[in-house]
This record gives sequence, C-alpha cells and structure tokens, in this order.
Amino acid sequence: MATDAAQPSLLLPEAGGGLLAALDIGGTKIAGALVDGGGTVRRRARRPTPAGGDTAVLGAALDVLTELTTHQEWRSVAALGIGSAGPVDIAAGTVSPVNIPAWRGFPIVERVRAHPAVAGLPVVLCGDAVAMTAAEHWIGAARGYRNALCMVVSTGVGAGLVLDNAVRSGPTGNAGHLGHITVDLLGEPCVCGSRGCVEQLASGTSITRHAVAQGWQPDEGPADAAAVAVSARRGHPVALAAFDSAARALAAGIAAVATLVEIEVAVIGGGVAEAADVLFPPLRDHLAGYATLPFAAGVRVERAALRGDAGLVGAAAIAGAATAGAR
Amino acid sequence: MATDAAQPSLLLPEAGGGLLAALDIGGTKIAGALVDGGGTVRRRARRPTPAGGDTAVLGAALDVLTELTTHQEWRSVAALGIGSAGPVDIAAGTVSPVNIPAWRGFPIVERVRAHPAVAGLPVVLCGDAVAMTAAEHWIGAARGYRNALCMVVSTGVGAGLVLDNAVRSGPTGNAGHLGHITVDLLGEPCVCGSRGCVEQLASGTSITRHAVAQGWQPDEGPADAAAVAVSARRGHPVALAAFDSAARALAAGIAAVATLVEIEVAVIGGGVAEAADVLFPPLRDHLAGYATLPFAAGVRVERAALRGDAGLVGAAAIAGAATAGAR
Repeated sequence: MATDAAQPSLLLPEAGGGLLAALDIGGTKIAGALVDGGGTVRRRARRPTPAGGDTAVLGAALDVLTELTTHQEWRSVAALGIGSAGPVDIAAGTVSPVNIPAWRGFPIVERVRAHPAVAGLPVVLCGDAVAMTAAEHWIGAARGYRNALCMVVSTGVGAGLVLDNAVRSGPTGNAGHLGHITVDLLGEPCVCGSRGCVEQLASGTSITRHAVAQGWQPDEGPADAAAVAVSARRGHPVALAAFDSAARALAAGIAAVATLVEIEVAVIGGGVAEAADVLFPPLRDHLAGYATLPFAAGVRVERAALRGDAGLVGAAAIAGAATAGAR
Repeated sequence: MATDAAQPSLLLPEAGGGLLAALDIGGTKIAGALVDGGGTVRRRARRPTPAGGDTAVLGAALDVLTELTTHQEWRSVAALGIGSAGPVDIAAGTVSPVNIPAWRGFPIVERVRAHPAVAGLPVVLCGDAVAMTAAEHWIGAARGYRNALCMVVSTGVGAGLVLDNAVRSGPTGNAGHLGHITVDLLGEPCVCGSRGCVEQLASGTSITRHAVAQGWQPDEGPADAAAVAVSARRGHPVALAAFDSAARALAAGIAAVATLVEIEVAVIGGGVAEAADVLFPPLRDHLAGYATLPFAAGVRVERAALRGDAGLVGAAAIAGAATAGAR
C-alpha cells in the first residue's frame, strides 16, 4: 500500500543514498531530475518539446533520461516516475497529451523501459495534476492532511486527490478531474463535450475572456489573467467581477469534492493562484455558501507551496510510493 | 484492509456458522436482523420509531436488539453493524437523523455497546446510504465492480461510494453525499444552505413539485412521483418533462462522480427508481452528454437489486468488512 509511503520519512526507508528519477513531459518542455528522499532535486536535465513526429518527441525524452544516467548518482536510483500532460492511461502505460499532437495513445512506459540504463527499474506513470498533488502532499501545502484536493488553475484547471493518505488517481490515472465536472448544468458547451464545466468558468483563459467581454482592457501588456488581477487590485469592477465569477465556480467544484469524498484541504497552484490576494477572498466567501454540510464546511483553502518543480518532485513521489508498496 | 472483505466469500472466512447482526435506524421504523455469510437475512425484529424523547427511541432500538439476542444463533454473531439515517459521525459514533429530532449527536455506538449481550462484539456505525452501497456491492447490482456509486433516489437523494473494491465513507462516514453537490451554481437555495443541489432538482419531491407547478394533476390518488410516472407513461408532456429535468440533474451528478473518482457503474435504488422505465432512458441520454471524457464516458447505469433489506444487509456487510479488516 502507498498509504504511508507518501510521507517524507517513509518514501525511501533505505534513504541513505537512495534517489528517485523523474520525467516531466509537457507541451513546451521535457524535464528530468534526480530527487532525493527529502524531495530535493539533486540533478536536472531539460529539452524543448520538439514540434515533430512521435519519434522526435521520444528522442527528446530519451535524451533527458540519458543525461540523467550519466551522473554517478544514477546507480542509486530506486525507481523512475513519469508525469505527463494528459490525458494519460496508467493502466495501458500510454499518454495522449493535448499539447503534443504527435503522441496519441503513445506507449511511453514501454519505450522508457527499453532504455538500457532503465532496465529492471520500476517505471511509474501519472498525469501532471496527479504529480502536482503527490508533490504537495509529500513536501508541500497538503503535507500532513489525510484527505486533500490539489488543483492547478492556469490556462486550464487540473486536479488530483489524496484519500486516506494516499494519492488516488483511479484505474486510468485520471481521477480528480475537477476541471470537467459540471457546475452549471444548462451552461455553455465546453471543449470536453459537456457543458458548464469548472474549467470553462474558472480558468485563467475564462477570467480574461469574461473581463474582455465586459469591456475591460489591460492598462499595459497582454490581456491575460495576471493583467485582470492587476486591474482588480486597483478596484476595477469588471476585473473584480471576473475573479468573483471564477471563484464561484471553483468554490462549487471544491464543495462538490468535499461533499463527495470528505477532504480537509484544497490546495491551489498554477498561474491564477499567483493572484491569491485577488482570488482567495471571494473563493473562501463562495465556499462558505456551497460547502454547507457539517462534514464539508470545514474544508480549508491553501496556496500551493511548490512551483516549477512540482511536476518532477511529484513524479518522483509517485514512483517512490509505488516502490514502497511493492516491497 | 476491507478491500476484498466486501466480497461474499471473504466476508466471513470462518462462515461455517458465523453471522452478522444489523440494526437499521430510520424515521419510521427501527429494524434488526441476523444475516449470514451469504447476505441472507435469517432472523428479523422490528419496532416503530417512537415520537418521544431520546430515551424512548433508544428503548425501541434496544428492544429490537434484545429480540435478536434471544435467538440461539446470537452466539455465533461476529459483529454488529448499525446503519442510520443521517447525518452520522462514525468517528464520534454519533447520529443526528433529520427525521428523529430526539437524537442530535446521540452516542448510539456507546449505548448499544452497553447492552449486556453485545459486550465484546465489534460495533460498527454507518449511514443508511453507505449501508445500501455496501449491500449492493456485496450481493447486488454493484457486485464485481471495483469502483461504483450507489444511490437512493426517493424523497431525498442519498449515495455512497465503492473505491478500489472497498466502501469508502470518509472520516465522518458521510462521503458520497451526491444529493448535496451543486450542479446549478446560480440555482435556487437548497435546504442544506447551498443552492442548485442534485437532491433539490432530482428527488421524488422535486419531480412532483416540478410537475404540479406546470399544471399537472394526478389522474387518481396522491400527487407523488409514482403518479407523475404513471402520467409520463401515458405520454403526458409535463410529466415527461419533470422526469427529464430530474434525469438531467442526476446525470450531471453521476458524471461529476465518474470524472472525479473514476467509477464503472452507478446503481440507483429508492422509490423513484421504481419508475426505471420512465427515468433511465432520459438519464442515460443526459449522462452521455455530461460524462464525455474517455475514462468517464463508459459509466454504466443499473437499477439496484436489493429493496427493503438493503439497509440491514448493508449494515451487516460494513460490520463484516470491518471485522475482517481487524483480523
């Protein structure tokens, strides 16, 4: 069981020199790292994600991996975690990242296992939001909570769940997909095919669209959620309303999770959470309105503690937990 | 772990003559049973729920229990499960049933443990929807599924979750509370304090209210969901619209669960499910519209297999699983 393995001291019981390797695969870059038993990144590698075909993308991933294997510490690596942009299918070991069109049902686990230096190592796949969740639970803002929701709110809305002290990503690895639950059942159609989804109402893209549609324009620079936040801080009513609307949808979604699975905390990261001063006050207000049953009403909202390394640290944590579970 | 304990053959490994005792506490009656390792009720007892104070209600519950203890088979009882109308707090061992005003934070576990014939037996508390879920997973329509949602749609909407082959009721026992997640974030206020909840849009009460508000009247008998179903079968457009509206809200809720935790099946029981011929076709249609992501799109909808005994059988299952876990 991974139940207790997500705690720092238990991730690598033999942590003397033990390390975990991680790959973080996204639409713009492929990053790699060697991570120690305390969650600290010891070595890094990185390539831009090629625009070419599936072989080119794999080549970049394997280059990152090969660079990691050149370090002497590679010998003490106990497992390799792969965090990838979704959708993923952890049962099949495949990924179909929306932002990497060359990979559809791509057997990343099998291909990585074929790397000579990986032979025999446990290789574990997870989605990027699940990786972020594992990282926040291991050494971040969800640490010490037995039940948590961790979210990334940026151009989209991704999320993952910790239940009974273990990351629970479900049979295919996609559980926690908060961005695509419906909170407005007669709302506008969403890109996912459903309608009224949290992502559609609460992403950074949505905040910007909402503000622009009401006549807002940035004082300077591009029209994005960060610029809307600048205006909101200055008291611009349209910018404040855009954040309030997003906060309402996020609150309804968080309340749904608290009501369905009982969580103690919702941890929020991603670009939009950089505007925590603008987002969190209305979010907490709306949450008090939607999470009303006694067992749900106490859910806390916290800002994510990890930033750019969450994907790598989380992939390492997932690998470590799986390895601990196999012992 | 209860993981595999919910399967019939594992509930009572020593099932030769082993039995489980169950209490089912509701607003109109308190039922008790001795249940064998195959989920069959062997002995029964029953009292109306008194309208009096907390002592009167407890007296009825203890009378039911005492009647069970008079049977010779009581000696082979391995554990006692208590399923109760909610809210419950399984961590505290207390219940506050909406329909039993005399009990608020009532320490039912402690009081039952004090019964002389119970001394030393494991006593396990769960909510009634969780009990129904355990029963359907043990010997009903959710049997064989590793991940399931089981719902009761009647005057209210209750539900429970099976995750990774075990009933997961959360720290306080209220997880799976599908009736009070918001699917219409700007909708009408709900009795729970939130707004736009599934229960508010999909309960039998709501179906009837919806139809009456649009001018529908029953051909005969009381105006209830069963009567609306009769009219719907005859093609009455208002009755059909009332069921369609409820089906849409249920579908949005089921899709949210499938998207958040990955379930393979949604099992629906309760009075409204008696009109499965009227409810299920629009429910499946709407579900196809809301559960769109590949890992959620395959969720099945099944009618509950157990009827009146679900609460007793489920309380027994919860007790058996906990007992198996303790070994």
